[in-house]
Amino acid sequence: MTNAAFHLGALLYPGFEMLDLFGPLEMFSMLGSQAVKIHTIAEQPGPVAAAMGTEVGAGPRVVAEHGFADAPVLDGLLVPGGFGTVPELGNDALLNFIRERAATARVVASVCTGSALLAKAGVLDGRRATSNKQFFELARGQSDRVTWVERARWVEDGPFFTSSGVSAGTDMSLAVIERLFGSEAAETVMKAAEYTWHRDADDDPFAAELNSLAAMLGSAGTDLSS
Amino acid sequence: MTNAAFHLGALLYPGFEMLDLFGPLEMFSMLGSQAVKIHTIAEQPGPVAAAMGTEVGAGPRVVAEHGFADAPVLDGLLVPGGFGTVPELGNDALLNFIRERAATARVVASVCTGSALLAKAGVLDGRRATSNKQFFELARGQSDRVTWVERARWVEDGPFFTSSGVSAGTDMSLAVIERLFGSEAAETVMKAAEYTWHRDADDDPFAAELNSLAAMLGSAGTDLSS
Repeated sequence: MTNAAFHLGALLYPGFEMLDLFGPLEMFSMLGSQAVKIHTIAEQPGPVAAAMGTEVGAGPRVVAEHGFADAPVLDGLLVPGGFGTVPELGNDALLNFIRERAATARVVASVCTGSALLAKAGVLDGRRATSNKQFFELARGQSDRVTWVERARWVEDGPFFTSSGVSAGTDMSLAVIERLFGSEAAETVMKAAEYTWHRDADDDPFAAELNSLAAMLGSAGTDLSS
Repeated sequence: MTNAAFHLGALLYPGFEMLDLFGPLEMFSMLGSQAVKIHTIAEQPGPVAAAMGTEVGAGPRVVAEHGFADAPVLDGLLVPGGFGTVPELGNDALLNFIRERAATARVVASVCTGSALLAKAGVLDGRRATSNKQFFELARGQSDRVTWVERARWVEDGPFFTSSGVSAGTDMSLAVIERLFGSEAAETVMKAAEYTWHRDADDDPFAAELNSLAAMLGSAGTDLSS
């Protein structure tokens, strides 16, 4: 680790899941701005509305400081999930941005259905990865070149960290911090955030819910995975 | 519970702690917008920057849809903490807003040092409450009419739910959801967010860190509590 700050790009799109983004960003923020610079990035700069349950873009709005065109060089990229993932699977500008930045970043981390976007962009080819449990087929449907791991809180493979649904991203982000800044830093952050870190990447009580939401949504769920 | 949506106000101020806000909002969002309407509110409408570690207002910006003057009627008020709490302890407009809305809300919930603001506003007089562990004196210093509980993940007293630091707010928010919408709703939300809910309000592994950050910051910490 050099003394230069780690530049972390947080990708926003309409209907991103708020905790997917702010769980990890909270943990990184605890390292302070000497160590980490957070950059919020969307296709265009300006406010981007989070998901409100299954409703895309009905939640609180977060400001993207940069558009894809003017985003700074990134050491890390964080890709949240949420119901807004589905329309973005057809957004070439976003998929290209992921592809371009994943080629040079030291860490690319996704939370929840964010791994569907990584898979669709092709950057997970030949890698192991996981995704949201209740909506697992959405990710699996994007690529058969990825080894999809059903039971995992998160999966690390080279520069890629993919986590299971929402809260699992916070556990994963502490593992990213551990890799980048060491165990002591991760533990200091965990205590400062009064967060009970689930350190075991394989401890996944939610694997039992596999595709339960996709099944509940019926044909809509099937459509999403195709 | 009636069929009307629960209107939840999320208070923003420069240097709020991002997970204090978005942990609880995530859980509420999972109930869907038929059940819950989230309103972001600050002194003035527009973008408000979160804390970045100890730096007030250096973090990502979230849009306040309403100012204090045009905020809708609220069933619940969520007050985050963060290093931005300290200057707000002298902001009469914010303290008045809390006082006014706490008088009619069914639930007033604070996370982390947010309880210092509630105490300063006087709405916790005669109540039991808790606060961030590493910075406990900040809250305690605001009022001796509050029974401050050092060991608790969160404390419920009438309409007031006060939680310990950052992540404890997410556990507390599920207890709020349980009270308002029932156990089944809280469990559905927990599973959908793949969140391991710490259901025991008294289970507080972070009480051991009492005032450790305040001590580390030395005289600055002392100043804050006076």
